Amino acid sequence: MEVYFDNSATTQVLEPVKDMVLKIMTEDYGNPSSKHKKGMEAERYVKEAAETIAWTLKVEPKEIVFTSGGSESNNMALIETAMANRRAGNHIISTAIEHASVYNPLAMLEEQGFSVTYLSVDSQGHISLEELEAAIRPETILVSIMYVNNEIGAVEPIEAISKIIKKKNPAIIFHVDGIQAYGKFLIRPKRQGIDLLSVSSHKIHGPKGVGFLYIDQKVKIRPLIYGGGQQRGMRSGTENVPGIAGLAVAAKIMYTDHAKKVQALMDLKDYMIESLKEIEGVTVNSFPGELSAPQIVSASFAGTRSEVLLHALEEKGIYVSSGSACSSNHPAVSGTLKGIGVKSELLDSTLRFSFGIFNTKAEVDYCMDKLKEILPVLRRYQRG
Amino acid sequence: MEVYFDNSATTQVLEPVKDMVLKIMTEDYGNPSSKHKKGMEAERYVKEAAETIAWTLKVEPKEIVFTSGGSESNNMALIETAMANRRAGNHIISTAIEHASVYNPLAMLEEQGFSVTYLSVDSQGHISLEELEAAIRPETILVSIMYVNNEIGAVEPIEAISKIIKKKNPAIIFHVDGIQAYGKFLIRPKRQGIDLLSVSSHKIHGPKGVGFLYIDQKVKIRPLIYGGGQQRGMRSGTENVPGIAGLAVAAKIMYTDHAKKVQALMDLKDYMIESLKEIEGVTVNSFPGELSAPQIVSASFAGTRSEVLLHALEEKGIYVSSGSACSSNHPAVSGTLKGIGVKSELLDSTLRFSFGIFNTKAEVDYCMDKLKEILPVLRRYQRG
Repeated sequence: MEVYFDNSATTQVLEPVKDMVLKIMTEDYGNPSSKHKKGMEAERYVKEAAETIAWTLKVEPKEIVFTSGGSESNNMALIETAMANRRAGNHIISTAIEHASVYNPLAMLEEQGFSVTYLSVDSQGHISLEELEAAIRPETILVSIMYVNNEIGAVEPIEAISKIIKKKNPAIIFHVDGIQAYGKFLIRPKRQGIDLLSVSSHKIHGPKGVGFLYIDQKVKIRPLIYGGGQQRGMRSGTENVPGIAGLAVAAKIMYTDHAKKVQALMDLKDYMIESLKEIEGVTVNSFPGELSAPQIVSASFAGTRSEVLLHALEEKGIYVSSGSACSSNHPAVSGTLKGIGVKSELLDSTLRFSFGIFNTKAEVDYCMDKLKEILPVLRRYQRG
Repeated sequence: MEVYFDNSATTQVLEPVKDMVLKIMTEDYGNPSSKHKKGMEAERYVKEAAETIAWTLKVEPKEIVFTSGGSESNNMALIETAMANRRAGNHIISTAIEHASVYNPLAMLEEQGFSVTYLSVDSQGHISLEELEAAIRPETILVSIMYVNNEIGAVEPIEAISKIIKKKNPAIIFHVDGIQAYGKFLIRPKRQGIDLLSVSSHKIHGPKGVGFLYIDQKVKIRPLIYGGGQQRGMRSGTENVPGIAGLAVAAKIMYTDHAKKVQALMDLKDYMIESLKEIEGVTVNSFPGELSAPQIVSASFAGTRSEVLLHALEEKGIYVSSGSACSSNHPAVSGTLKGIGVKSELLDSTLRFSFGIFNTKAEVDYCMDKLKEILPVLRRYQRG
């Protein structure tokens, strides 16, 4: 049996996504900037993709800018709003549990003279609204907080956060890293007060190398990439038409029968959390039901090393992540796990299981069986 | 008959490219940062792609950074070397005929306090080496000159340019926009003295949304996109594995039997130039043989408007470009055509025909027949 439980790292594309990519790549391969029919066909795919994405968020198509993925979206959102609004202030607020594609642009901005406050989180991974309110200064220009944490699935109270920010100063821009949330949550930027939202395609069964940034039309932001003026000058470069259209197909599928799809993931999560709790020496860092994201289960296995357990599961055909898996070259201990207060002896004993729409309860059962086989062996070996 | 003569705007993917993209997208879909087998498989595709690209240029694989395309490569090369070397000086040299993805980042850098000298070109589109030499100042940190002009196919004397720069000051970084050159020229950065080379995949029958920047290991440069530290920290973001592997397949094919492939393009170009010269009122802005790139023919058609001619050809199934076609939203008159001294009444009467490896002499014949049909009609109509 092959069980892919690493969907928060990346997903397999859906069949209709593959068909769309293939069709555009081979038949409708024009450059959207070309003035002839093949160019116009290509342009239509991009336009329709923006309409589909806008439909999933209930925003305007012109507020969608396609990028090369979540990292570019986060970089553009942070660096280019900070730079564009520099005269209004140099203070940014974020959290201690952001993804590296938020954390590292912020570190770069700190080198450029910006000041960043990193909010702490409680044992469930939630920020404190009081701490947020106290952190807002007259010179605060930008707040960046993730919707769903990629390591444990914690869901931040986005709407409440926005209310606090906007009440203090409506000019402050609120960026949300929605990379693990899009497709799993009904996101309504206008109602929730989100000014910028970063999304990646390959986390929702779309193609790699593409994503988007939702930019509320009132936000002052510069482009990250300059050139031929594509996408209303906000993101130059020949559009990745197959990728963009493929992303739109995936988004449309994820947001069709959405509640049912989310419930299926949620059921898997709850089932796995229940099952894990029956195993001795397992601490689950995620929560059942609405308390955390439907697709992520983080668990610590006392007396094992995560990398050893990961490879033992791999031998049984089960693919999971240790830590966030989004930066193979920085195997440092997770900021999120530390942030929520995971005991130091468990930091390096934690795995992330993450689901996509292809997963089943039978796979969870198989995984549990194998864990029950493997854990005693590993623990005996590591004690010895 | 359908004749696609707009290959400098974008190309159709090769069959083996399509197969590779499809295989990775559906079967080997892992995230290169994941530590399990599916991650390692994905990582191997990226590693092998870097080796293939390095082989085509005779450089080291670690000097290749994959990007989302030519525009990102040009932006990174210009903005991030300028910023990283700011303390050494604030002067940059480029030309009056660069692509918008070079020109617009330079304009942004000028707003940031950099000073840019734009070299003029002669009637063949070549810069003057004397003018270049005279433009170099003690505070010059970067020179950016395209290998092949995208509108007329002019080929700049890259090696001679580098010699002049390096003789004056070996610390000056030489960036070459190789987007229209890669695949058509044997490029040897180490021998030609190129420090940075931008390349786009979709101009060489590879997938859209991917490209690379060659960065000589001695060049001081910052990342444009920060995050999980992929690609040795130089370009974060989950690698677009299908795109990257597809680009490598295209590159390998283009550089296999390379001389033969280039000769086929050159033959088409020479044949078309000869044929065009037989038509009354046509001025060819490109040159036969080695004097200009093998894949581009620019021609001005007196007494017609390029957009009208473009659509008349389109009705016959022939797809070409007016101007550079790389920026549909800026239909301004071409800087290149002005730069080489095309008569003002012909500026808006110019088309670009550009070839890929699928084109044939029969297609050129068909195009010529249709031009001979269409031109008298259009000229009569426009006079009337």
